[in-house]
Amino acid sequence: MDWATFISDLNGIEVITALPQVAKLSEDYFRFSPILEPILNGKVGDIVVRPASEAEVLQVARACVKYQVPLTVRGSGTGNYGQCVPLHGGVILDITKMQAVRWLKPGLACVEPGIKLAALDKKAQEIGWETRMVPSTVRTATVGGFIAGGSGGIGSIMYGQLRDRGNLRAVRVVTLEDTPRAIALRGDDVQRVNHAYGVNGIITELEIPLAPAYPWAEAIVTFADFMTAARFGQALSNCDGIIKKMVSIHATPIPSYFAALRSYILDGAHCALILVSEADLDPFRALVGEYGGNICYEKNAQDANKGTSLVEFSWNHTTLHARSADPSLTYLQSLFPNDPQLELVQHMYGHFGDEVMMHLEFIRMNGIAIPAAIQVVRYSTPERLNEIIQYHEEHGVLIANPHTYILEDGGMKSINYEQLEFKRMVDPYGLMNPGKMRAWMEVR
Amino acid sequence: MDWATFISDLNGIEVITALPQVAKLSEDYFRFSPILEPILNGKVGDIVVRPASEAEVLQVARACVKYQVPLTVRGSGTGNYGQCVPLHGGVILDITKMQAVRWLKPGLACVEPGIKLAALDKKAQEIGWETRMVPSTVRTATVGGFIAGGSGGIGSIMYGQLRDRGNLRAVRVVTLEDTPRAIALRGDDVQRVNHAYGVNGIITELEIPLAPAYPWAEAIVTFADFMTAARFGQALSNCDGIIKKMVSIHATPIPSYFAALRSYILDGAHCALILVSEADLDPFRALVGEYGGNICYEKNAQDANKGTSLVEFSWNHTTLHARSADPSLTYLQSLFPNDPQLELVQHMYGHFGDEVMMHLEFIRMNGIAIPAAIQVVRYSTPERLNEIIQYHEEHGVLIANPHTYILEDGGMKSINYEQLEFKRMVDPYGLMNPGKMRAWMEVR
Repeated sequence: MDWATFISDLNGIEVITALPQVAKLSEDYFRFSPILEPILNGKVGDIVVRPASEAEVLQVARACVKYQVPLTVRGSGTGNYGQCVPLHGGVILDITKMQAVRWLKPGLACVEPGIKLAALDKKAQEIGWETRMVPSTVRTATVGGFIAGGSGGIGSIMYGQLRDRGNLRAVRVVTLEDTPRAIALRGDDVQRVNHAYGVNGIITELEIPLAPAYPWAEAIVTFADFMTAARFGQALSNCDGIIKKMVSIHATPIPSYFAALRSYILDGAHCALILVSEADLDPFRALVGEYGGNICYEKNAQDANKGTSLVEFSWNHTTLHARSADPSLTYLQSLFPNDPQLELVQHMYGHFGDEVMMHLEFIRMNGIAIPAAIQVVRYSTPERLNEIIQYHEEHGVLIANPHTYILEDGGMKSINYEQLEFKRMVDPYGLMNPGKMRAWMEVR
Repeated sequence: MDWATFISDLNGIEVITALPQVAKLSEDYFRFSPILEPILNGKVGDIVVRPASEAEVLQVARACVKYQVPLTVRGSGTGNYGQCVPLHGGVILDITKMQAVRWLKPGLACVEPGIKLAALDKKAQEIGWETRMVPSTVRTATVGGFIAGGSGGIGSIMYGQLRDRGNLRAVRVVTLEDTPRAIALRGDDVQRVNHAYGVNGIITELEIPLAPAYPWAEAIVTFADFMTAARFGQALSNCDGIIKKMVSIHATPIPSYFAALRSYILDGAHCALILVSEADLDPFRALVGEYGGNICYEKNAQDANKGTSLVEFSWNHTTLHARSADPSLTYLQSLFPNDPQLELVQHMYGHFGDEVMMHLEFIRMNGIAIPAAIQVVRYSTPERLNEIIQYHEEHGVLIANPHTYILEDGGMKSINYEQLEFKRMVDPYGLMNPGKMRAWMEVR
C-alpha cells in the first residue's frame, strides 16, 4: 500500500504517521487481560487520520474504499478488550477532533462523537442536565466510543444500560459502500450500530438522552463483613425514596488497592462507594445505620466536584487500581440477574475466596436492581481462568467475557442478525474493524 | 360543653359554627363506600377552628386539653375513608390557612401543612423541582392531609410510596399533653406520625423531598384486549430508559365513564393513561408499537399544562368518574406484589368479569414495579363485597380495605407500636381523632 498516495487523496485532513504515535493510538486497555495481551500486543495501524467533520469522514471513507484499506474507528481508547485495536493494520480513524455540541435541550443532547463525556456533562449541567450514565473513564472517554464499545456505568442504577430502549435516540453513520454516504438512524433502528465496535458504520453524530443533574454527594461506607456490605448495596438500590447514581461494593482486600483512599478505609474493611443525591443524605445515613455501616468519608456535592471523585475507583477503575498495585491481577465482568437474596453472590464469594475478589456494581436491568460484578482475579493460567468463568456460568452467573476481542463472545453471546444485515449493506468489502465480528467471518 | 366559653379561650382564632359549613367540613369522600356511608353519615364536629400558625394551633390544643374536647385535623378532606371525619364531635381543626412555604432548595421543601400540592408544585417548579408524588386530587389536596391520610400516587412509579424511607424528612407536631408543645421529628422518627390520620399529633410543618420537574407529556393508548394493556403497563414501568410519572391502566368499560375523554377512546377499548417525559416520547412510541397499542391522544408538556390533566382520571379520580356515571359503583384498593407475569391480575380479571372492573396503577415497591389496583366494583351486598375481598386475599392480593375508617384495618393490617407509643405520650387523654386507632382502643 502506497500511503503517500492515500494521504494525498485526503486533501489535507490531519494525518499522523509517526510510528510511536500510531502505535499509541492503536491501543486500548487490553493489557488488563493476560489472554488478550499477547494476542493484541503489536497490532498497529498504518496511519492515524483525524477528521474534523462528517465531510472529512466521508472523504476518508472514499479513500478507504478506493484503496480497499481497513478502517478502525477510535475515540479515546478507554475500552478494555481491544474494541478499537486494528487487527489488520490500515487506517485508525481518530474522531476526537469532532467535539461539537449540535444542540442541547431538557432531556436530550445532539453531539459529535468525539466530545468527552465530562465535557458534555459540563455543558449540559449549565441547563440543569447531565448524561444518564458514564464509565469510570468519564473524564477521557468520548460519547461515540462509549456507545460503540461500552455498556453502562455510573448512572445505570437509575437508567439501566446503554442497550436499553431510550438510552440512545439517533445516530448518523458513514458507510464504506462504493459511494460512501451518511445514514441517519432513529428509534429502534439505532440498535443496528449500538455497541458494535464500529464494525458497521462510522458514527458521526449522536442524539442521547439526558438526566436531571442532581447535586451528587459522595460517601464511603465500611462494613465488618462483605455480605452485609453487599446487602446494604442491594437495599440502597431498592430504596425508591433515596436517589443514587452509584452503588459500588468492594470486598477486602480491594480497598487496599485504592492508594488515595487508604487513609479513610481501615485495613481489612469492606466498603461501599456511593454517589447519592445531596438532598437525600439524611435517609441515606439512616439506611447506613440500619446495616451497621460506618461512614468514613463524606463530601457534599460542591466538595465532591473538587479533587478526585469516587467515580474513579468504581467499575473498571477498580481493576486499574488493583493492577497498579499488582500487575498480575486481572478481572471478570458478570451479572447476577436472578439473585435478589444475593445467595449466588455469597456462594461465589465463599467459593473462590481471594482468588476472585468480589466487586459489585449495582445496575438496573428491566426495572430491577441487580448486582453486576467486575471481580478482581488472581491470574494463574488460561485454563484456570476458563474454569473460573465456566463455574460462574454453570451456576447462573452471566459472564461478559473481557478476555476476547470478538464482539459476540463478550456480553452478547449470540449473533445479532440486525447488526450483521446492516454490515452487509454499509461495509460490503468488510473493511470496518475487520476480525471483530464473528457473524461476518462465519456467516457472512 | 359550653362552646362559647371554648371559643372565647381561643382569643380570636377563626372559628366556624354555622351547621351547614361545619357539616361540610366534617366530611370526606367516604360516600365512595356503601359500607362507610351509613356509618359516617351525619358524623359532624361541633365547631371548626381555622388556625393560621403553629402558635394558634398550640392555643387550640390548650383549649382542647382544658375542656377535654376531641380534636380532628383536616386538610381539604379529599380522603376516601373517613380519615378526617369526627366520630365523636368536638373540634374540627382545619389547617388550610397554614400555607406558608418556609424554604425551598434543590431536592427539599419545608412547608406548612395546609399548602395545596399543586401550589407547592408551582412554587417548586420555579427552581426546576416538584413534589415526588401527588394524589389525583393534587389541585385541592394539602401536603399535610396527603401525608396523614394518603399513601402514594402519581409519581409512585418513580419514587415508591410515602411510607418509604426518604419520602418524608421531618415533621413538627403539636401535642395534646397537659401542656401542649411542638415536637420536631426527623429521620426514621417521622414514621411515628406518618399516615396516622392525625391520631397522635397535629402536623404544623413538614420537610419533604422534591423531584426534578420533567416536562411531562400526556398520552392515552388504547388496546384491543386488557391483558395486552396490562403487559404494556408492566413493560413501560420496567423500562429504565423511559422516564414516566404515571402508568394507569383501565379495562373496559371504565374508559366509558370518562366523559371528557370519550371522544378519544373507541367504545370497548381498554386504555393506558400515561405521563411520560416529553424528551422520551420517541422510545415511548416505539414501546407502544411493540405492544400494538394505538396512541389516540397525545399532548406535549406545554399543552398538557392547559386544560384537564390525565391525572384527573387516574387513581381515585377513576372511582369518582365511575360513580358519577353510576352511583351504585364502589371500589377496592389492592397490591399485586408477586406477580411479575401478571398471572394473578389475569386471573382476577377473568374470574370477576365486569363485577370487578380492573384498574391498575403501577408503582414501585422496594425497587420493583408492581401493579396496584383500584378496581371499580359493582356493589350488591356487604357479604358479597367481603367475599370479593376474601377471594383476593386468599390468592395473594393485598387489599388495603377502603371500606373501613380504622387505621389498622386499611392497608396497615397490624398494630404499629411505634405510633401507639407516640400516641401514649402526646395524646394521654385520647382526644385526637378518637375511634380511628384500633391499637389505642384495644391495647391502650
